[in-house]
Amino acid sequence: MADQRRPAVVLLSGGLDSATALAVARRDGFRRHALTIAYGQRHAAELEAARRVAAQLGAIEHRVVPLDLRAFGGSALTADLDVPKDRSAEAMAAGIPVTYVPARNTVFLALALAWAETLESYDIYLGVNAIDYSGYPDCRPEFIAAFEQLANLATKAGVERRGQFQVHAPLVHLAKADIIRLGISLGVDYSLTHSCYDPAPDGAACGRCDSCFLRRAGFAAAGVSDPTRYNQ
Amino acid sequence: MADQRRPAVVLLSGGLDSATALAVARRDGFRRHALTIAYGQRHAAELEAARRVAAQLGAIEHRVVPLDLRAFGGSALTADLDVPKDRSAEAMAAGIPVTYVPARNTVFLALALAWAETLESYDIYLGVNAIDYSGYPDCRPEFIAAFEQLANLATKAGVERRGQFQVHAPLVHLAKADIIRLGISLGVDYSLTHSCYDPAPDGAACGRCDSCFLRRAGFAAAGVSDPTRYNQ
Repeated sequence: MADQRRPAVVLLSGGLDSATALAVARRDGFRRHALTIAYGQRHAAELEAARRVAAQLGAIEHRVVPLDLRAFGGSALTADLDVPKDRSAEAMAAGIPVTYVPARNTVFLALALAWAETLESYDIYLGVNAIDYSGYPDCRPEFIAAFEQLANLATKAGVERRGQFQVHAPLVHLAKADIIRLGISLGVDYSLTHSCYDPAPDGAACGRCDSCFLRRAGFAAAGVSDPTRYNQ
Repeated sequence: MADQRRPAVVLLSGGLDSATALAVARRDGFRRHALTIAYGQRHAAELEAARRVAAQLGAIEHRVVPLDLRAFGGSALTADLDVPKDRSAEAMAAGIPVTYVPARNTVFLALALAWAETLESYDIYLGVNAIDYSGYPDCRPEFIAAFEQLANLATKAGVERRGQFQVHAPLVHLAKADIIRLGISLGVDYSLTHSCYDPAPDGAACGRCDSCFLRRAGFAAAGVSDPTRYNQ
């Protein structure tokens, strides 16, 4: 029997937020096509986490598309810059950090759109978050709205179906603790996810980068035990 | 002496239109960083043409970024579909053809934006054209305007410089004959460019696909001899 559910493309990094977005797409009744962009991340741990999460949450397929954003340089996540450690919440809120990858979400959404179009899908899920967001401009609701508008002008599907593309960003207004509570209620196994920008060779999280800081604080605020193995 | 000109990223396919856009960026006084996306084109002829054109028109660098859009399928230019031949101008105007690559210009502009941001460039040139445009939705002025708006929301540069990103589409309102006249006045050597969707193994153009049809008709209308080697 053919799968009659509507298809959605879900951008999946292997982190906590995108795993939760995938679980929301499941709750919303979509057939889930998970997409991971291998953009020259410094650690294979992220890709492995994405594979585990796609399987756990029942994506019907998971594609990994290589795209070497290191070709353009400009970020501690893709170039040889140091990942900042031990920053306060205030320091994180004060500006755009060196871990910012130029135009990352624009590139990722564009690729998701290309796949959505060939799948005849009009729905893209993205786990961005504008509350505990580490200062990235392409995580804001106005960015999402602008991309949705673009998608409907950019594509054959948008033109022929008159603007039905939707970019779902179900976490955009949630604090990290609320994301974790939502994910747990939807069956996410957070022990499979990976957040650290600078893990040890054995995969243990550093416990000190912005991403570890936000993750730890989120579990603490949610009153949920954090399954992550931290080095410090 | 350092090059004091402002930098611009120019998307360069190796075709007639993008070569002309590169010449316009030169006329406008920009330092030109040419970007070619190797998206699983069926013919290396396009990439070779891009290299020749970048050199002829004095780009200070030319990057070729591999991105295999065949991963998503959906186009006669990237999948195993037949390229249509011998279509009339009316047939071309009637709908979006199978040579349409899903979300291509969205993906290309997103990558240009990523590079522009690391170059501290606020200018992207794109040789799209809404007149003799073969029916692609992502060649229309409203698409360009929507991307410009997105770019200013998406990026650190857009946020910090308050919306200075500009997507230049200098050919968007020109007929093919006018593009050719403009390019010749700006020193483009069209014998270096490649337009055919289905060239012979020796590089000769088929003379029958939409792209050959538009190119031939453009040279004829401009009253300029067409330097292309056609098979038919």
